[in-house]
Amino acid sequence: MAILSALATEVLIPVAAVIGIAFAVVQWVVVSRVKLSPAASGGSGGKAGYADSLIEEEEGLNDHNVVVKCAEIQNAISEGATSFLFTEYQYVGIFMAIFAVVIFLFLGSVEGFSTKSQPCTYSKDKYCKPALFTALFSTVSFLLGAITSLVSGFLGMKIATYANARTTLEARKGVGKAFITAFRSGAVMGFLLASSGLVVLYITINVFKLYYGDDWEGLFESITGYGLGGSSMALFGRVGGGIYTKAADVGADLVGKVERNIPEDDPRNPAVIADNVGDNVGDIAGMGSDLFGSYAESSCAALVVASISSFGIDHDFTGMCYPLLVSSVGIIVCLITTLFATDFFEVKAVKEIEPALKKQLIISTVLMTFGIALISWLALPAKFTIYNFGTQKEVSNWGLFFCVSIGLWAGLIIGFVTEYYTSNAYSPVQDVADSCRTGAATNVIFGLALGYKSVIIPIFAIAVSIYVSFSIAAMYGIAVAALGMLSTIATGLAIDAYGPISDNAGGIAEMAGMSHRIRERTDALDAAGNTTAAIGKGFAIGSAALVSLALFGAFVSRAGVKVVDVLSPKVFIGLIVGAMLPYWFSAMTMKSVGSAALKMVEEVRRQFNTIPGLMEGTAKPDYATCVKISTDASIKEMIPPGALVMLTPLIVGTLFGVETLSGVLAGALVSGVQIAISASNTGGAWDNAKKYIEAGASEHARTLGPKGSDCHKAAVIGDTIGDPLKDTSGPSLNILIKLMAVESLVFAPFFATQGGLLFKYL
Amino acid sequence: MAILSALATEVLIPVAAVIGIAFAVVQWVVVSRVKLSPAASGGSGGKAGYADSLIEEEEGLNDHNVVVKCAEIQNAISEGATSFLFTEYQYVGIFMAIFAVVIFLFLGSVEGFSTKSQPCTYSKDKYCKPALFTALFSTVSFLLGAITSLVSGFLGMKIATYANARTTLEARKGVGKAFITAFRSGAVMGFLLASSGLVVLYITINVFKLYYGDDWEGLFESITGYGLGGSSMALFGRVGGGIYTKAADVGADLVGKVERNIPEDDPRNPAVIADNVGDNVGDIAGMGSDLFGSYAESSCAALVVASISSFGIDHDFTGMCYPLLVSSVGIIVCLITTLFATDFFEVKAVKEIEPALKKQLIISTVLMTFGIALISWLALPAKFTIYNFGTQKEVSNWGLFFCVSIGLWAGLIIGFVTEYYTSNAYSPVQDVADSCRTGAATNVIFGLALGYKSVIIPIFAIAVSIYVSFSIAAMYGIAVAALGMLSTIATGLAIDAYGPISDNAGGIAEMAGMSHRIRERTDALDAAGNTTAAIGKGFAIGSAALVSLALFGAFVSRAGVKVVDVLSPKVFIGLIVGAMLPYWFSAMTMKSVGSAALKMVEEVRRQFNTIPGLMEGTAKPDYATCVKISTDASIKEMIPPGALVMLTPLIVGTLFGVETLSGVLAGALVSGVQIAISASNTGGAWDNAKKYIEAGASEHARTLGPKGSDCHKAAVIGDTIGDPLKDTSGPSLNILIKLMAVESLVFAPFFATQGGLLFKYL
Repeated sequence: MAILSALATEVLIPVAAVIGIAFAVVQWVVVSRVKLSPAASGGSGGKAGYADSLIEEEEGLNDHNVVVKCAEIQNAISEGATSFLFTEYQYVGIFMAIFAVVIFLFLGSVEGFSTKSQPCTYSKDKYCKPALFTALFSTVSFLLGAITSLVSGFLGMKIATYANARTTLEARKGVGKAFITAFRSGAVMGFLLASSGLVVLYITINVFKLYYGDDWEGLFESITGYGLGGSSMALFGRVGGGIYTKAADVGADLVGKVERNIPEDDPRNPAVIADNVGDNVGDIAGMGSDLFGSYAESSCAALVVASISSFGIDHDFTGMCYPLLVSSVGIIVCLITTLFATDFFEVKAVKEIEPALKKQLIISTVLMTFGIALISWLALPAKFTIYNFGTQKEVSNWGLFFCVSIGLWAGLIIGFVTEYYTSNAYSPVQDVADSCRTGAATNVIFGLALGYKSVIIPIFAIAVSIYVSFSIAAMYGIAVAALGMLSTIATGLAIDAYGPISDNAGGIAEMAGMSHRIRERTDALDAAGNTTAAIGKGFAIGSAALVSLALFGAFVSRAGVKVVDVLSPKVFIGLIVGAMLPYWFSAMTMKSVGSAALKMVEEVRRQFNTIPGLMEGTAKPDYATCVKISTDASIKEMIPPGALVMLTPLIVGTLFGVETLSGVLAGALVSGVQIAISASNTGGAWDNAKKYIEAGASEHARTLGPKGSDCHKAAVIGDTIGDPLKDTSGPSLNILIKLMAVESLVFAPFFATQGGLLFKYL
Repeated sequence: MAILSALATEVLIPVAAVIGIAFAVVQWVVVSRVKLSPAASGGSGGKAGYADSLIEEEEGLNDHNVVVKCAEIQNAISEGATSFLFTEYQYVGIFMAIFAVVIFLFLGSVEGFSTKSQPCTYSKDKYCKPALFTALFSTVSFLLGAITSLVSGFLGMKIATYANARTTLEARKGVGKAFITAFRSGAVMGFLLASSGLVVLYITINVFKLYYGDDWEGLFESITGYGLGGSSMALFGRVGGGIYTKAADVGADLVGKVERNIPEDDPRNPAVIADNVGDNVGDIAGMGSDLFGSYAESSCAALVVASISSFGIDHDFTGMCYPLLVSSVGIIVCLITTLFATDFFEVKAVKEIEPALKKQLIISTVLMTFGIALISWLALPAKFTIYNFGTQKEVSNWGLFFCVSIGLWAGLIIGFVTEYYTSNAYSPVQDVADSCRTGAATNVIFGLALGYKSVIIPIFAIAVSIYVSFSIAAMYGIAVAALGMLSTIATGLAIDAYGPISDNAGGIAEMAGMSHRIRERTDALDAAGNTTAAIGKGFAIGSAALVSLALFGAFVSRAGVKVVDVLSPKVFIGLIVGAMLPYWFSAMTMKSVGSAALKMVEEVRRQFNTIPGLMEGTAKPDYATCVKISTDASIKEMIPPGALVMLTPLIVGTLFGVETLSGVLAGALVSGVQIAISASNTGGAWDNAKKYIEAGASEHARTLGPKGSDCHKAAVIGDTIGDPLKDTSGPSLNILIKLMAVESLVFAPFFATQGGLLFKYL
């Protein structure tokens, strides 16, 4: 047995979660010291919050109007985001309610709604709880997952809209101050999400255990609903938010930057508020829900595999909770890592921003490696057994340590490769920028080629992780490798959320009419943010690939499929159709962004043409109509792609059965991961190629610029094309692959007994 | 036994091939009646070839200068293309020689270069020819395939460069005359290729039989080299030709159309000759080699599967030759179909062009269905046995008829879906054109979404074909379904080759300074050609998917793999890495086009800036330097992607073994087919969206145009981006998937005995 007792485990997990939440609160308090009310910052002459202002460059510190204006804009953004999310949640709520009923009916029907106990799947001599109750508990955990995901996204948005104007105001005092404000706010979100995800899962397990008792198989089967709920919510959040933000962004850019030649985020642009709202509902709330979903699913995948292995059969609670313990250690490690950026070192210059963020990744990975070693030694028995499609595998605790670590380090490699391909400090993005000399067409060709090329190393990293972790501990190895990649999620989310906050801060500076120097500082933050956003997406995709495979393995086990043979036509047609689904899904989402952007462009043009004095800045644009266009478009357009993803496993499983469904899952996984990586890197590269030309930081960059040159115009076109790729279709794809896998797992008992109707009757 | 005797089969196949060749010669003679020498057309006052000129609109018929100029330009294009192909063939020749040695050594080593007979793989009680001789014969058939493919491509180029100026001259007499000239020339290529492919394969089988005698297993194993040779040549032809043509096209457009505002194919543009040469070496020679490769491979796949089934074991020569008989019937059917376009009906107006080409597809498919029924009844026994991974399957002759037909009709469906998504007569392309209102970015977003969407129905068509044909006759069913799709290859190639010929004709009209009306006529031909080119690519991709799967099945059989289980990590890592290969390959080819285009742009700009009087038309540009840039770039850049495709199966098979290689093949297949379809449809749609705006044939189109408007400029950018997608990376991908599969099949005996070194020693 493990060194750590069951009681210690019961204590350790919630304690780590509470520490994480407390740390988030502390960071929040620090951020909130930046006052937005002119009474506090103005009335006392800027003394209170700005004690150290004298030693920094000062600029407009005492300009009350600026503060008032920032507060106003922040308010408008926050209101817009809140109102959109409420509208979104109403629609998603209806969907979730219907889907909850579907889960209950499908799973309940497995044993004909009988309330009698049944023989367990893996130990036929024991009796397990009736399917009807597992259906009920699955439905409950589905709703819990959805609600936790919803709250995560909403909280993230609230934090970001709280932090954006504060970052702008801090930028007056220097780039270091602004950086730390944005970063702390990101950390608030990261720690809140990681901790609440852990604590809700922990409580759910303990509550469900009251009913299930010794039947861990049923317990963890029903817990899987938690992952499904989290990911379903994430799907709509990503797609809806993604369409919202990019419709506004593309619409604003096309008229503002290209036609009217006014800067980004210019307050005269009617779509500018919608654009900034979009950053918060898409990049923040959507991403929060997404990574929470990954985390919930990888935990569920690991738990469900463990429950049918020796931990479950021997009732080793500590071993069983190993996935949760890894996440607990992760929170503590990330806490220490955060201190390196906020307290141990200080960012003083623009060129220190990216290294500071990169160091976060490296430090957290190195520390976490020791953390995993420690917890593997404490929580695992020296030897245990994993069941793998009917065979058994002996695994040692250091073997499992190796599985988690390889996932963790593969994540770091993917992160660095992503950085190499999307940061304008390296040659790939500079080459793309250079290709703008010959116009938008070559820029697009080079950008697409870059995205395709950026897939190579991440795929090898994923392949090696899969091979090694599977060889050591079968599907359990893959599940914990995914957990390893996500174990530093708090830090990952912090540097990820930092990007849109900086983006918003720049927008607010522009809208509040602050000086060029402030805008330059926020732009520098934002450029680093583009790269970290791409890194975050890399993590999300890499972990999604591992999680999906683990869920796929759990599904296949649960559905009693012994072999998924590509040479069987049932499987092969699933494989080729599954590989097609990401294209279908991308076509839908990209077309949605395009159509919504067209509407936005027409509205913005209409306002510029019909509102007198708008271009001169003497009249105010009608921001609300643009917000409404984005809202309506995203609500309407998120339904078809959402339905595609949610219904495919149900239809395929019911009509074609588990073999074809296995093919679909494998096909969607191996094809989707490629498109997702290439789409987000292409988009990130175009965005930073544009920023490279705008910043003009090198001799080469200056020959391409300045803003408004032909090269720059070509770069703007690339950036605009990249928007839906990197923020709508790309990141939604990893939800597609995870969600189809977890949904199949939840419905596996139904498909295994009732599925494949078409082949049965043909 | 079958109704058709072995002797009748021996006669029927060469007769059909000879009829096909004779028909091609007749069409050639008809085309050659259009005289290009001013002596004939001018000296006799235009009587000889133009007897019917009085009843058509006449324009410049007696302008000797125009004829002389056309002849000159044709000559320049033909010389450029010939010289490029000779250079290309030198490099490819060296490669082929080396690869031939590799084949001999690898396959010879299977039984340690022993010259003793060995027990057969499928009937252990019989003795088969030694591996050393099979290695030798495989090498010979590899070289034969490569040479036939090379000759096919070269002949196609010669025909096209013979026909282009003749089409231009005929356009003076009306669109119908021009159409028929271009179409007849396409038919020359189609029939020559289909017939020579058949006859060479037939002769090779008969010659090899002299040595192999009763050992049909060894005979058809060594014949597989023919498919490998054909496809290897096609790979370099497609990639090299594709880079050549698109570097020139993109380079010419970027400076000419976008910067200098001169029309396409303007003789002042220094890259214009290179551009027109490119159409012939890329779209004609490359495509000819490609479709020949598909045809050779699907025949080989069917033969190799048949040889280890009851046809082979019972020595039923007629049944064995069923694939060749289907192709023979196809030649006759296509001959009749061609008469519908050339003799039975006449194209009189622009709007009749596309329907005439579409009718070709429909007529050939309908007639071929009867042809297949007839030959299935004549050539197959009522019942026979197919061996499928150790199990047996009873198949009836009408069952096999159904397999071939489903492939044939799936091809038609794919063709029509492609037409719907790429022709500007339908809403998808019109929507893309409409999105140009808001600039190049929305055009690109809509175009990419269109390409992704266009994948859906073709994939379902392929999936259904696979499921049905496999259910009926296992892997043999899939192989003959592929053959069914390719059975109307002569017609497919005719309408496919018609496109680039028309494109060239338009270029010659422009360069020869002919009137606007002539150019409008050739543009109308060309617009229809874009759609047929896309349809042709659809066929090529669809058949490639089926062929690859059949080859994959044959490989797995030959390598003795019983099951390719996705749940095995060896297979899964192959699957995910295989799915990545098309991205890697596309990244290479697109970047190559981009870099070569950049060089071309610089050269064209240099000439415009330094040659005085070039823009005014008083000085001639230096065409030769542009031709050299395209040649050098394509020769240099075709090597890395070629090496990627050729070496991957060798490396994976040798180091990781047949299971991982199976995963790689399946992954590359299911992922590659999607990118290939979406890339060529996106490119075709952009091209036709541009043409839609230029032609201004509808009220809607006129609001977007005219040439030179902002919408049109946005459309030109889309068209330029689409060039490498639709003519370089997209069509090369179907060679990637086929070639890796056929290469694996050829090397299967080696991999099965010596492969998987890495896993053996780990």
